[in-house]
Amino acid sequence: MAVKTLNDLFLETLKDIYYAEKKLTRVLPKIAKQATSSALKGAFQTHLAETEIQVQRIEEIFESLGKKPVAKKCEALEGILAEAEEVTSEIENKQTLDAAIISSAQTVEHYEIARYGTLACWSRELGLERAEKLLEATLEEEKGADEKLSGLAEDFVNHRAAA
Amino acid sequence: MAVKTLNDLFLETLKDIYYAEKKLTRVLPKIAKQATSSALKGAFQTHLAETEIQVQRIEEIFESLGKKPVAKKCEALEGILAEAEEVTSEIENKQTLDAAIISSAQTVEHYEIARYGTLACWSRELGLERAEKLLEATLEEEKGADEKLSGLAEDFVNHRAAA
Repeated sequence: MAVKTLNDLFLETLKDIYYAEKKLTRVLPKIAKQATSSALKGAFQTHLAETEIQVQRIEEIFESLGKKPVAKKCEALEGILAEAEEVTSEIENKQTLDAAIISSAQTVEHYEIARYGTLACWSRELGLERAEKLLEATLEEEKGADEKLSGLAEDFVNHRAAA
Repeated sequence: MAVKTLNDLFLETLKDIYYAEKKLTRVLPKIAKQATSSALKGAFQTHLAETEIQVQRIEEIFESLGKKPVAKKCEALEGILAEAEEVTSEIENKQTLDAAIISSAQTVEHYEIARYGTLACWSRELGLERAEKLLEATLEEEKGADEKLSGLAEDFVNHRAAA
């Protein structure tokens, strides 16, 4: 579709992040399985549960706009995941792999932080109060997930990988 | 190459962001040209100058490790840029285009924030003091560039696009 207004752009970007979140509900269980540290596995399982609710929040936003939820292929996430796959497939050592998994997962989190930050900002400008509230809730969860991963890296994952 | 240690992973990730920064020195002038608002054009020109120095910093880190600078195709950035291109090509209205350009640029900034945050953290763990100092300097610039874009969006770009 041709994008003319900020409303159109908001909707197109919502389709993009809808695709991304749905894809992540399929990818996160694989990442949890790949991780060695139980704390790291647990962090991905927790984030999977959050992601499932984030998908529902996006569906609620579509509904609040009188639209059916539509996913649009998110080339950015596909690129980020392709790179993550490439890096982790080259790693033989389990401790180094955990460090690489955190690094890759944080590029995903930051993509989401950028997208939700923008969508929340646009929803405010467009007076979409329900959408804004839901987007802000997810944004805070993504920031929390990113900080949790930084914490695990700094607490012990990087140290084990460097040993 | 097979990645075994955190040192290997640090080096591979450095090659990835080296590719990304060099690519951005070619992409940023095009984005500056595409922007309508002169303040936004100026922000991209300033960030281009920063990016050129960031490339040199990465080369200095390679040198400090006794390695030649090598770039490795960054699939994540390629995906992010492909998506940006796809979105902006669909937009007819100049004010909406400026909002979309900021949104796309912030996904690039956040990718870099994630990568430099990780690299700085790893350099600390590995005792690479010179690298840590240079990576922290770039990380702060990327965060600054992201905040500047948020400021422009909130100050007037989103408002004009919603008008």
